[in-house]
Amino acid sequence: MNATHRSALVNFDSLLRIFTIPEGPDSTLTQIEEKLSGNLNEFLKEAIVAEEKPLSEIEHRFANAHIPEMPEFVSEHTEHLMDNLVAHSVHTAAPSFIGHMTSALPYYLMPLSKIMIALNQNLVKIETSKAFTPLERQVLGMMHNLVYQQDEPFYQRWMHSAQHSLGAFCSGGTIANITALWVARNKLFAPCEGFGGVTQDGMVAALRHYGFDDTAILVSSRGHYSLSKSADVLGIGRKNVIAIDTDEHNKLSIPALKLQLEELKQNNIRPLAVVGIAGTTETGNVDPLDEIAAVCQQHQIHFHVDAAWGGATLMSNQYRHLLKGIEQADSVTIDAHKQLYIPMGAGLVVFKNPNDMTSVEHHAAYILRKGSKDLGAHTLEGSRSGMAMLLYSSMHIISRPGYELLINQSIEKAHYFAKLIKDHPDFELVTEPELCLLTYRFVPAFVQQKLRVANLQEKQRINSLLNDFTIALQKRQRENGRSFVSRTTLNPHQYHQQSINVFRVVLANPLTTEAILDSIITEQQELGQEFGYFMDKLRCLCK
Amino acid sequence: MNATHRSALVNFDSLLRIFTIPEGPDSTLTQIEEKLSGNLNEFLKEAIVAEEKPLSEIEHRFANAHIPEMPEFVSEHTEHLMDNLVAHSVHTAAPSFIGHMTSALPYYLMPLSKIMIALNQNLVKIETSKAFTPLERQVLGMMHNLVYQQDEPFYQRWMHSAQHSLGAFCSGGTIANITALWVARNKLFAPCEGFGGVTQDGMVAALRHYGFDDTAILVSSRGHYSLSKSADVLGIGRKNVIAIDTDEHNKLSIPALKLQLEELKQNNIRPLAVVGIAGTTETGNVDPLDEIAAVCQQHQIHFHVDAAWGGATLMSNQYRHLLKGIEQADSVTIDAHKQLYIPMGAGLVVFKNPNDMTSVEHHAAYILRKGSKDLGAHTLEGSRSGMAMLLYSSMHIISRPGYELLINQSIEKAHYFAKLIKDHPDFELVTEPELCLLTYRFVPAFVQQKLRVANLQEKQRINSLLNDFTIALQKRQRENGRSFVSRTTLNPHQYHQQSINVFRVVLANPLTTEAILDSIITEQQELGQEFGYFMDKLRCLCK
Repeated sequence: MNATHRSALVNFDSLLRIFTIPEGPDSTLTQIEEKLSGNLNEFLKEAIVAEEKPLSEIEHRFANAHIPEMPEFVSEHTEHLMDNLVAHSVHTAAPSFIGHMTSALPYYLMPLSKIMIALNQNLVKIETSKAFTPLERQVLGMMHNLVYQQDEPFYQRWMHSAQHSLGAFCSGGTIANITALWVARNKLFAPCEGFGGVTQDGMVAALRHYGFDDTAILVSSRGHYSLSKSADVLGIGRKNVIAIDTDEHNKLSIPALKLQLEELKQNNIRPLAVVGIAGTTETGNVDPLDEIAAVCQQHQIHFHVDAAWGGATLMSNQYRHLLKGIEQADSVTIDAHKQLYIPMGAGLVVFKNPNDMTSVEHHAAYILRKGSKDLGAHTLEGSRSGMAMLLYSSMHIISRPGYELLINQSIEKAHYFAKLIKDHPDFELVTEPELCLLTYRFVPAFVQQKLRVANLQEKQRINSLLNDFTIALQKRQRENGRSFVSRTTLNPHQYHQQSINVFRVVLANPLTTEAILDSIITEQQELGQEFGYFMDKLRCLCK
Repeated sequence: MNATHRSALVNFDSLLRIFTIPEGPDSTLTQIEEKLSGNLNEFLKEAIVAEEKPLSEIEHRFANAHIPEMPEFVSEHTEHLMDNLVAHSVHTAAPSFIGHMTSALPYYLMPLSKIMIALNQNLVKIETSKAFTPLERQVLGMMHNLVYQQDEPFYQRWMHSAQHSLGAFCSGGTIANITALWVARNKLFAPCEGFGGVTQDGMVAALRHYGFDDTAILVSSRGHYSLSKSADVLGIGRKNVIAIDTDEHNKLSIPALKLQLEELKQNNIRPLAVVGIAGTTETGNVDPLDEIAAVCQQHQIHFHVDAAWGGATLMSNQYRHLLKGIEQADSVTIDAHKQLYIPMGAGLVVFKNPNDMTSVEHHAAYILRKGSKDLGAHTLEGSRSGMAMLLYSSMHIISRPGYELLINQSIEKAHYFAKLIKDHPDFELVTEPELCLLTYRFVPAFVQQKLRVANLQEKQRINSLLNDFTIALQKRQRENGRSFVSRTTLNPHQYHQQSINVFRVVLANPLTTEAILDSIITEQQELGQEFGYFMDKLRCLCK
């Protein structure tokens, strides 16, 4: 293509053409789309997790900080994307990519997403989302129902009420958690005679008015990092996120919680929320939600549950009981882009009490007027896309029993994998799966034998070496590109709180078979044996 | 379809099928997609802005709070969406929908969005977004370059630096503004000897440590409501957003700003940011950014520019000067889903100083490790989609000169419309367009004559009636469905700060022709004459 062709695009008539509807099945755009779909399918069919190219080499292709002065043809640019972007993307949908919460998606979401993109509704106000607003309110109602199971009149009364929101749909769990804690903070430091509330007057005036020295958020030491971020953003301070000890199953210890609440009281620090976790990010455990609820009720503290990942378990009648007590929470975060199998960018929070969100209500002159049904009056975000539609569609196409099957098989697969690890002489299961997440590490049989009899100092020395080994092995496995597990650092009871690096897997992808899990263990075992340096050092330490 | 068919879907094998790649061009899913595309095109071709159905009737279709127990076929559900959702959606892309900042989108974004949805990358960490992370860093570099125009070595040094981010891509302008003010707050109340910083210790400790009585954000009275929301969220308090008076062109008054800064100093209140607006939401004006920058420099205050809407003007070499001084801002918010023509859910903030975002940096054990290039270490959001890709593509396909044409024609169209209104005896232009936004109202010629000679009390009485008239007319026009303008309330100098309801139009849609603008004025004029009640009352008042 020559410069004349290119410069031809930069006139207003040709620009207008890109904004108008392509005609028929033979249009260039339709052809590009077909080719693109084919290429994407090729990519998704590949067994490889990621083509291993050094990051610096990929960065080299994205190094130009200038906005182009010459236009590209769509066809030309699509090729460019296939070669430079798609080819080097991570295949998060691969059945052997079991390291993170990103999974394969139902295929019908690809065509249905078109509706969302083409209609380009803005959910902040009903003027730009007429049918999408009722739809999103229904989705929030359904998710509220999933958690709280209120009766029919409840939903008929509140779901479409202009003055209320049963929750907020947002881009993800972090915004959902911030929203929940924002509401909790504003409820606690509410306006009253002579005080405009923390919303109007800020944190300093709030504590002064209510006579507290400080405020705090309590969560187990396994809490997600978004909670500290929330405390930072909300002006509470990261140090005021009090980490409560866990028991040997990584669940919040109730005695420790009670003790901490006593201590805060003595120091005149008013807790603004206790956060229970339904599916910790690193070990997949669920806190004793019913017991936390009882403590919160006694102390009149907002009880928030971070079920960003584990919330989908409520779809399973068989496993719902694992989250018992969640229905007593004041607010619950659930990510639809995790185990509800919706594309990235779909989170939400629901509130038990339909009045709770009034504590963060806001208005403007040109939208969000009082009495309007604009969802934006209660959301942290402003302009928002119609993502709720995809959750709506999946709930209708998969249905609750379909989701139940997906959840059940993921939990059962985790139990299968755990057994595989336990039965293998060269691996150690570090945390048992409660939902579909578990952690483990490669520990050759002779090392395991030694660890059983070693003294504390020897154990620490061996674990320290194993930690480096785990990092090296995880990296090598990732670079090989056949499979991917993530890694994290835990402080397990069995190792006296020493920091232990572990592999972490999430078995959410329905396409991950038992055979794939077998092969991942075999691959890791073989890779492990190849690390002469670590194997020799371990042999030396275990003599 | 009978119950046997339906229940057949709820077994694991058929569920697996929805997660696997549809085979070839004859697959059911491909057929559904083709039909869907056709239907969407039909919808988008319609001249109607919205089919007028009472909202209550639409809500009736979204009233069930139960997650279905029976699955639906994709084909069946797609029909359901077309009938219940698409048919009653707002046609935000219609050339006569000139009320909000939502416009027609380039069509190539529909197929390209598929890449984003299908790859389902999570931008929080490089492990789930290998090529997307460098891409997003490049996009941030390009947008930084658009604003700050630093030299080549600057971008080569910082764009891909693991310890830095030139900004943050996010779901929209509100999150971008919160991010900017979060950074400004954390920079101001930074850690030092004996103090962990506001990030660790919270607002109360911060003010105590630095010895201030309070803090404040200064912005003109035309500031977007997200700034008050930011102050609420950040623990600063809405009342501490100080509204600075504007001049007769809705631009922040520098003398008023200086006076306010003096006053705050005397009251021991430390301003944490001054916000300049580049394109106010309601009148489209640009603050004197260079003068604000000088004041901020003198007082050592963070200078943030909310260019969510107007930032795209920087693409135009011809009109860039309207935003002069923006390159002196410490941070700038730009929405890509406004006049950069990207689908809903694409905003960003850039920071002049590559070190600024370290004030909000955070880490975790399993991701965002120190030294990683994970973008999540500096973002307010956690998991995020690959939306930056669409901006990347549009910058390549449209190119800067293409964007310039789009911007220029929108501004010229606004001038055309302004002239049309001024030349028409029955309309009054309330605010002149500076970019492509203007406000006006229907004021029959005889009322305009009277207003010119009326005393203050008479003026107020007439304006009060006109206010109700404007609301009624805007509503009737919307209900007719042929076109849509929004409305807001201003306090124009020419009416001595009386609240005046006005029509508000944004002429961003490239498909909006002069002929369409002519017809909108004709339609409004005719609709106006039909309101006997208001016309009679006005005649009576103007006797």
